Amino acid sequence: MRVLLTGASGFIGRHVMRLLRDAGHEVHAVSSRPAPTPATTLWHVADLLQPDRVRHVVGQVKPEGLVHLAWITTPPDYWRSPENLSWVAASKQLFQAFRDAGGQRAVAAGTCAEYDWRYGYCVERLTPLAPATLYGRAKADAGSFLESLAADAGFSAAWARLFFLLGPHEHPSRLVPSLVRDLIAGKPARCNSGALFRDFLHVEDAATAIVALFGSAVTGPVNVASGMPVSIAAVASAVAARVGRPDLLQISAGDDEHPLVVASTQRLKKDVGWAPRRDFAASIADAVDWWRSSPLVQVDA
Amino acid sequence: MRVLLTGASGFIGRHVMRLLRDAGHEVHAVSSRPAPTPATTLWHVADLLQPDRVRHVVGQVKPEGLVHLAWITTPPDYWRSPENLSWVAASKQLFQAFRDAGGQRAVAAGTCAEYDWRYGYCVERLTPLAPATLYGRAKADAGSFLESLAADAGFSAAWARLFFLLGPHEHPSRLVPSLVRDLIAGKPARCNSGALFRDFLHVEDAATAIVALFGSAVTGPVNVASGMPVSIAAVASAVAARVGRPDLLQISAGDDEHPLVVASTQRLKKDVGWAPRRDFAASIADAVDWWRSSPLVQVDA
Repeated sequence: MRVLLTGASGFIGRHVMRLLRDAGHEVHAVSSRPAPTPATTLWHVADLLQPDRVRHVVGQVKPEGLVHLAWITTPPDYWRSPENLSWVAASKQLFQAFRDAGGQRAVAAGTCAEYDWRYGYCVERLTPLAPATLYGRAKADAGSFLESLAADAGFSAAWARLFFLLGPHEHPSRLVPSLVRDLIAGKPARCNSGALFRDFLHVEDAATAIVALFGSAVTGPVNVASGMPVSIAAVASAVAARVGRPDLLQISAGDDEHPLVVASTQRLKKDVGWAPRRDFAASIADAVDWWRSSPLVQVDA
Repeated sequence: MRVLLTGASGFIGRHVMRLLRDAGHEVHAVSSRPAPTPATTLWHVADLLQPDRVRHVVGQVKPEGLVHLAWITTPPDYWRSPENLSWVAASKQLFQAFRDAGGQRAVAAGTCAEYDWRYGYCVERLTPLAPATLYGRAKADAGSFLESLAADAGFSAAWARLFFLLGPHEHPSRLVPSLVRDLIAGKPARCNSGALFRDFLHVEDAATAIVALFGSAVTGPVNVASGMPVSIAAVASAVAARVGRPDLLQISAGDDEHPLVVASTQRLKKDVGWAPRRDFAASIADAVDWWRSSPLVQVDA
């Protein structure tokens, strides 16, 4: 299938690009950045926030498939940035251009932040949505638009709600990278919300889930997550053990606003038929080892 | 305070009885069984399912406080037994007799089975109730009646929703005892739903929570639980490790109906101010050690 991929140079997108190619698709990447060297994919340089450019590229490529991952993702700004509104608008225009070009199957990235976190366990089409942030609201808006447009236009679309990811190229300010950097530097590493349970997945497993979802006939919202509650304390302890400096770790329970945010993965596992390749321990090990062997300049902006 | 306690010889009740005494209360036990020897509590032999007897005992004792734990609890019958209906009726009569005798503070035992388990994470007054069993429906009915009666009559009442307990005197057919017995006997121990996450609490911690709740001014439903998701596989592994026979353990993931059933414990921890004395490892260790050192005849009927 001829597939248009946005966010192809991002944290998840780099893996999705490779996996789509491995699955035999003709992958066209759209990015505001220049193609990586060596270029292994058809690469279209375009700013997705410029509607004319998007419509032009989509009209040229005439994609049968769309995987839309691009969005503002710089922590912590993305939670509240007004740029979220630009991304909603750009995403809607992209979906419409895809429909107009005769597109058949679309998957786009949503977020666990669409759910009402007071409910803790997030089940598609059961747990109420009540985004607490502009990011969550913007994603929910885009997802709802995609679902309505697909139903109206007769193409097939799924909305991949991503939970908490970890792995190579994660932003250095995030939990695992910041712990690893402190611990490697021999500095005390603080973990202030040890008692909270979250749902962590290795970024490569998130990518295999997105590609599996794309290849399936499943429509509507689908959580992309491990389905396993793990405490922040357990994440921090596993990181410190892997670095070999458990002595430097300082864990406090923290306040317990939203003590648990975990995905139901029944749709992903039963309907899509996906299973992760790495368990929790292997995911942490891979992330830690990447940070230990990589210069910080490899970090995504 | 003069406190009437039902279920005083039961799995939880034996601890609640001691803790109420330790807190300085004058404890009157009602039980269909004879008083334990040596009798350390005022003991009234009465069948709670006989309304006249209940009204007579309550009229005699004139309790200021009530802790009502008695119910049909024999697994697996209690889930579906029509006797649940008798216990609803008996509980309502007990609550009314308590009101008529001028009672001031009541705590009674509810269950996590009142909640709609599709939601997984159970938050009082947020997660919908939708009991899937007669046991859950009967408990929800009794709890709702107690709350309305207390509001109407002007006494104070809380409803302790118990989750998954473990510890000494647990029924031998339950998860931990059945694993321990197989492992001690050198037989392969099967664990067929390893992938499910549940909320486990040591029975003595459940008892301290009930007594703390009784001593507080908190009203309405309050989950009594650890708030910590633990997989059945982790329970089984901890048991096998404690017994010293991890080689005999056979874990399968099982089907994933209701993958997660975990309590929000914010009300219990913040409003009541309770904290457990044992963590998960210590709870398992205590339960396993009790089974290893106890003849099976000590098991509750």
